[in-house]
Amino acid sequence: MTAANRILNPALRAKLMSAEQAATFIVDGDHVGMSGFTGSGSPKKVPLALAKRIDAAHQAGQHFRISVLTGASTSSELDGALARANAMDMRLPYQSDPHCRQRINAGEMDYIDVHLSHVAQYVWFGFFGKLNVAVVEVAGVLEDGRLIPSTSIGNNKTWLDQADKVILEVNSWQPEGLEGMHDVYYGTERPPHRKPIPLVHPNDRIGTPYLHVDLNKVVAVVATHDPDKATAFTPPDDKSRAIAGHILDFLQHEVTQGRLPPELLPLQSGVGNIANAVLAGLNEGPFENLTAYTEVLQDGMLEMLKSGKLASASSAALALSPAALAEFTADLDYWRQRVVLRPQEISNHPELIRRLGIIAMNGMIEADIYGNVNSTHVMGSSIMNGIGGSGDFARNAYLSIFMAPSTAKGGAISTIVPMVSHVDHTEHDVQVIVTDQGLADLRGLSPRKRAELIIERCVHPSFRDLLRDYYERARRGAPGQHTPHLLDESLSWHSRFVKTGHM
Amino acid sequence: MTAANRILNPALRAKLMSAEQAATFIVDGDHVGMSGFTGSGSPKKVPLALAKRIDAAHQAGQHFRISVLTGASTSSELDGALARANAMDMRLPYQSDPHCRQRINAGEMDYIDVHLSHVAQYVWFGFFGKLNVAVVEVAGVLEDGRLIPSTSIGNNKTWLDQADKVILEVNSWQPEGLEGMHDVYYGTERPPHRKPIPLVHPNDRIGTPYLHVDLNKVVAVVATHDPDKATAFTPPDDKSRAIAGHILDFLQHEVTQGRLPPELLPLQSGVGNIANAVLAGLNEGPFENLTAYTEVLQDGMLEMLKSGKLASASSAALALSPAALAEFTADLDYWRQRVVLRPQEISNHPELIRRLGIIAMNGMIEADIYGNVNSTHVMGSSIMNGIGGSGDFARNAYLSIFMAPSTAKGGAISTIVPMVSHVDHTEHDVQVIVTDQGLADLRGLSPRKRAELIIERCVHPSFRDLLRDYYERARRGAPGQHTPHLLDESLSWHSRFVKTGHM
Repeated sequence: MTAANRILNPALRAKLMSAEQAATFIVDGDHVGMSGFTGSGSPKKVPLALAKRIDAAHQAGQHFRISVLTGASTSSELDGALARANAMDMRLPYQSDPHCRQRINAGEMDYIDVHLSHVAQYVWFGFFGKLNVAVVEVAGVLEDGRLIPSTSIGNNKTWLDQADKVILEVNSWQPEGLEGMHDVYYGTERPPHRKPIPLVHPNDRIGTPYLHVDLNKVVAVVATHDPDKATAFTPPDDKSRAIAGHILDFLQHEVTQGRLPPELLPLQSGVGNIANAVLAGLNEGPFENLTAYTEVLQDGMLEMLKSGKLASASSAALALSPAALAEFTADLDYWRQRVVLRPQEISNHPELIRRLGIIAMNGMIEADIYGNVNSTHVMGSSIMNGIGGSGDFARNAYLSIFMAPSTAKGGAISTIVPMVSHVDHTEHDVQVIVTDQGLADLRGLSPRKRAELIIERCVHPSFRDLLRDYYERARRGAPGQHTPHLLDESLSWHSRFVKTGHM
Repeated sequence: MTAANRILNPALRAKLMSAEQAATFIVDGDHVGMSGFTGSGSPKKVPLALAKRIDAAHQAGQHFRISVLTGASTSSELDGALARANAMDMRLPYQSDPHCRQRINAGEMDYIDVHLSHVAQYVWFGFFGKLNVAVVEVAGVLEDGRLIPSTSIGNNKTWLDQADKVILEVNSWQPEGLEGMHDVYYGTERPPHRKPIPLVHPNDRIGTPYLHVDLNKVVAVVATHDPDKATAFTPPDDKSRAIAGHILDFLQHEVTQGRLPPELLPLQSGVGNIANAVLAGLNEGPFENLTAYTEVLQDGMLEMLKSGKLASASSAALALSPAALAEFTADLDYWRQRVVLRPQEISNHPELIRRLGIIAMNGMIEADIYGNVNSTHVMGSSIMNGIGGSGDFARNAYLSIFMAPSTAKGGAISTIVPMVSHVDHTEHDVQVIVTDQGLADLRGLSPRKRAELIIERCVHPSFRDLLRDYYERARRGAPGQHTPHLLDESLSWHSRFVKTGHM
């Protein structure tokens, strides 16, 4: 079936055109809301055509730059192409593309790193200015114009609602069986008209499977048949298996102590190899009838759904390897009973995360001895990716766990440092820190006790004495003993790395 | 009427005893949950008797230290007396007593600085260990044993529920007319049993006016007739009036732009002279029919309720000057229609703050050029008070505003620094920074644009060139240009202050 055959609404079918024609609706200075969350469901053709159009304008000496808002990270056809064309004035709320990152860290492009749950409402509130154009991939259009969402929902509901002009990409590569998997909640409002969100179990359906759009706003429909950018995973290595082992032991201990029920509480897990190793560990572990309430559904969770360890999963996006995606596509009737895809304002909503009592497991770049976590910055000045949903989850979770190998760059960088060079999660929001070395349970500990435990449990041996020395000298020489720091030295490890390539 | 006459339940009246007798139920190593929030509603006699008992034990060479959990700050009869007796091993979640602060910063006492909305649930979850004793002030006891809360509720519901032993102080100094002013919500649960909290307007009543306690757990009842510690305010000075003026202009602008309704949205305001100046400004300003959803009701809000500018106020505690308290007490039937006192898990609940769309206005110690805010620490190592509810409100607010004079210590300290020495509110959570110099609206701005605006608008002239020089050199010399920092210098202002007494 071609994409054109998936457009059952005649008015929208009449707007079919090429990506190049569609891209002409976007002009210099526009704020453009695009679909896409972790390589899934981003538009495949219009951004590429737009990048060419902007490149040509630049060649002709014209000014042409836009602001791009998405769900989260996207693909090289979107962030990569637009960044290479130097087409973006501003980007939010999350990115992970190397060209995009390079532009930001070169100071050639503005980037605003936003909690994923805040984005949709800030656009409604007008805090990010007017949204001119929405470019949204869908899997199909019903006769009455309702839209079948693609492999991510992200902020698409908000883009379609708020943009003056809408460009749809209808992607026939996306399986038709996605229909019915989504749950788009249309009950959110601007204050003072907000009501409780009626979700009480992770897999509750509280909305509709379709996205709505004012058909008069649709200026272009583009047919595509292009794959999502697959997420590549490497198999768990020793370090990620060690981290997973520490977390499993900890969860088991919490069950034994009566602080967690035997089926745990809904799991949230960041993306990446360590997260996947933890999920692989859970898949072989003692816990049954688990649930997930997360923002990204990756391979590890699919395995757990298959084995039955995981009873259901709620997410804002799929992020599967090609093999996992093939498996997913082959039996959508099975998965549709177990997977709900939601807008990110719902998947990451503080009200729901607090109510459900999530176990939040997120990666970090570094942590300091007092339990502050840096998730976004390299050596204080450069952005890596962004905070994503880690803040939405960590602050409101039942348990907030941050994890990373104890060293990076072949041992040149210690993950545990005297003071983090940027704070994304404050000491008030971090309960557990895990590295391959061990796990530090910081609940109920003062800063000094946290420091002692983190140094004992989490630091790589090659940095442990150095860090203990810093702490002991701060205990003697700092002007205060609540969180003793030597301010002339607290960032010296980072500074040394910048100068010498080794902390 | 004496306190004894306020104890209508015979079983509890039979447990009347002296504070000294009651204090004997608390033993070495106990975790004790005490009432009290900003000088209101803390127990008046038992902590003093306990401090004496512990002091005597120390004189006799015995080990006797306890952990103390409260609502927020308390009075000198509680924190002051126990700190002077070196009676506290651990204190949470907030304090502002000079003796207590001194013990913490001398390293003689552990302090855990916790979001006020997290405390109750962490105790239920068992994250802070077993709660042995509750010491709670009430205004009276009904015949069936239900308790009339005092001038703050704080975490009292949780202390009464969770503690093994309960000591009640019945304070006849508290007006009888407080009965009916409180709204204690008993619908919260541990996950996975949580439901939506059915509050949709700031002044909704969703619970009962009384606290419940298992009468079998009550080991002692103590009669008191002692005043709350009054909150002293100085009249607004030029700087706080300037800050208030900037905020009023900003709110007016937001209304004009259609981003706020004419009656604004529910106000949250921290305590202190600047907050009071902002409220005084609002009381003379153009906005009508305002509401407040906050954690502390101070003089400024009472004035607004009196003038009719403020239609209603929801709070976890009163914090009034003696004059305002007299006015309050004189006409409780009037105030009871306009004021609701709630547990802090409800006043500060992320679900409700996000739903209601609060305008959060909180003080800060310092902010940096990229919009990170330090609310708790002096020069990186010493605690001032604590984060209190500022994180609960700022993260989930419709608008999050942080305010402070542009200098401190007679001009020796700049409130705006290259990098804050401790982060309590990350760049992701701070929308507006205000000093007497001006207001920086950071919404929709990348870190570099935030830096330019903050330096232009908020920095005191005596530090402006120095800060601009830092930023411009970081723009040239930093290893990345997302948030350019010179790590060898970024904390040098603090370090210089420690060494020379001037930044």
